[in-house]
Amino acid sequence: MSYLDRIATCRRWDPAAYRPLVIDGRTLGRVSHGVARRLAEFPEVFVVSHDSVALAPGLDDFVSRSRAVAEVLGEMKARGEVPLWRGEDYPVVERWGAEPAFKIERAAAALLGTRSFGVHLNGLVRGTGGLSMWVAKRAANKQTAPGKLDHLAAGGQPVGLGVRENLIKEAGEEAGIPAELAARARPVGAVSYRCERPEGLRDDVLFCYDLELPADFAPANTDGEVESFSLWPIAEVLARVRDTEDFKFNVALVVIDLAIRLGLIAPDDPDYQEIWQGLRLAE
Amino acid sequence: MSYLDRIATCRRWDPAAYRPLVIDGRTLGRVSHGVARRLAEFPEVFVVSHDSVALAPGLDDFVSRSRAVAEVLGEMKARGEVPLWRGEDYPVVERWGAEPAFKIERAAAALLGTRSFGVHLNGLVRGTGGLSMWVAKRAANKQTAPGKLDHLAAGGQPVGLGVRENLIKEAGEEAGIPAELAARARPVGAVSYRCERPEGLRDDVLFCYDLELPADFAPANTDGEVESFSLWPIAEVLARVRDTEDFKFNVALVVIDLAIRLGLIAPDDPDYQEIWQGLRLAE
Repeated sequence: MSYLDRIATCRRWDPAAYRPLVIDGRTLGRVSHGVARRLAEFPEVFVVSHDSVALAPGLDDFVSRSRAVAEVLGEMKARGEVPLWRGEDYPVVERWGAEPAFKIERAAAALLGTRSFGVHLNGLVRGTGGLSMWVAKRAANKQTAPGKLDHLAAGGQPVGLGVRENLIKEAGEEAGIPAELAARARPVGAVSYRCERPEGLRDDVLFCYDLELPADFAPANTDGEVESFSLWPIAEVLARVRDTEDFKFNVALVVIDLAIRLGLIAPDDPDYQEIWQGLRLAE
Repeated sequence: MSYLDRIATCRRWDPAAYRPLVIDGRTLGRVSHGVARRLAEFPEVFVVSHDSVALAPGLDDFVSRSRAVAEVLGEMKARGEVPLWRGEDYPVVERWGAEPAFKIERAAAALLGTRSFGVHLNGLVRGTGGLSMWVAKRAANKQTAPGKLDHLAAGGQPVGLGVRENLIKEAGEEAGIPAELAARARPVGAVSYRCERPEGLRDDVLFCYDLELPADFAPANTDGEVESFSLWPIAEVLARVRDTEDFKFNVALVVIDLAIRLGLIAPDDPDYQEIWQGLRLAE
């Protein structure tokens, strides 16, 4: 087990198992053949061929596309084909900052393989014994990754909310961090990956933030999604990431990025370049 | 002018103008057609075809390859065809940490388009007015990038020297930083790029280090390569990187990486993903 194993998990997918979702000449998602066949049953919305999925002619703006796709997803949801429905909209974009082609229910992003964005917060405490990190244990009844180790706070990035606003909201809900404390979090970069997960194809960009917390701060979960929090020496966090799959797959990536920025993984590691390159996709 | 312009400069090259240098089935360099024609005059060492350059059969280990290539380069040097000869060996590798296929004179790396490694040091000072950075102005008589703005210290990574050792050596020679102070520098990641420069094709991985210096430290150049040093507020460094080409092309990239890690370029910038992705090649 090694950091490279964690990275490989985040990059494992089979391009032959998907058809590109092509909008305005750009690949904005990747649809499994099974889902593509299902979408072909809605020819007024999706144009499905053997090698691509597109939207029907006439669906050429944000509003009409969003409405048409939402109708299809609504029908699929009614038949139990869109698990983990959230009631939260995600933009469909090629890249952060680009004009969204349309928006979709969050649970459908993995179904269509569209790109999602999120925020992850490294909760750090500097003490006399060195640097420690707050580790959350996800509740056993969570629908995704039950019982896995997690960040102090993290969340998906919905349409219409700033990244910092979203971080402050998640920090409050998930860890009881007061807004004025959460606002001190510093954006430090991002990680990106594309991989097959039980829910579909994840194609995510996660914005990483570091927050140094006072020694007397104690997190408190308010939404029932966390079983417990504990403060770990950073070396223990890294060993657990390196040697086990106990951390949620994408949390491991953000922790590896932290370790590189802190110099805890350094160029004297022969895997350094491969690790560092593995933290982001080229596109 | 923008950060993306600085990144574009570091990624500008024309694949059609090069033939891959293929060793043991791997592309370890890229040779311009002109240089390829010249290498074809040494058929006992180079096998040159229309679409690739390889080493002659029988040159199958580090020692024999290094010796044979050195003989060709020696002849080319004698005719003035390898400018900026350094008398320093670089490994020829696909990736940091891999076993080198052979070694070559540093000046020939850009000629054959092989990958080079280097270290760059962000020299930082934390004061009451915020963060500042030491900026060097390269001597007007330097052969590469004369008069350009530069890091406090930086250097290429030769065969047989550790990255940290090299950093300490360069910090001493270029900025008069005592070894015990330089040893506090922290590895924080890397940047990589491939671009055409006057000397040939640069395909570089630069290991980035941050060093916080005491307020009373004053750098002193000992090798004549720096005209002057000055301490700039970080916002001025970033504005100069963003709005001008005054910084050396690759120094700009390392400064942009620093700005991302410090949160001075943040996800609220619509170019964030493109900037962050532009700091490293996929391979």
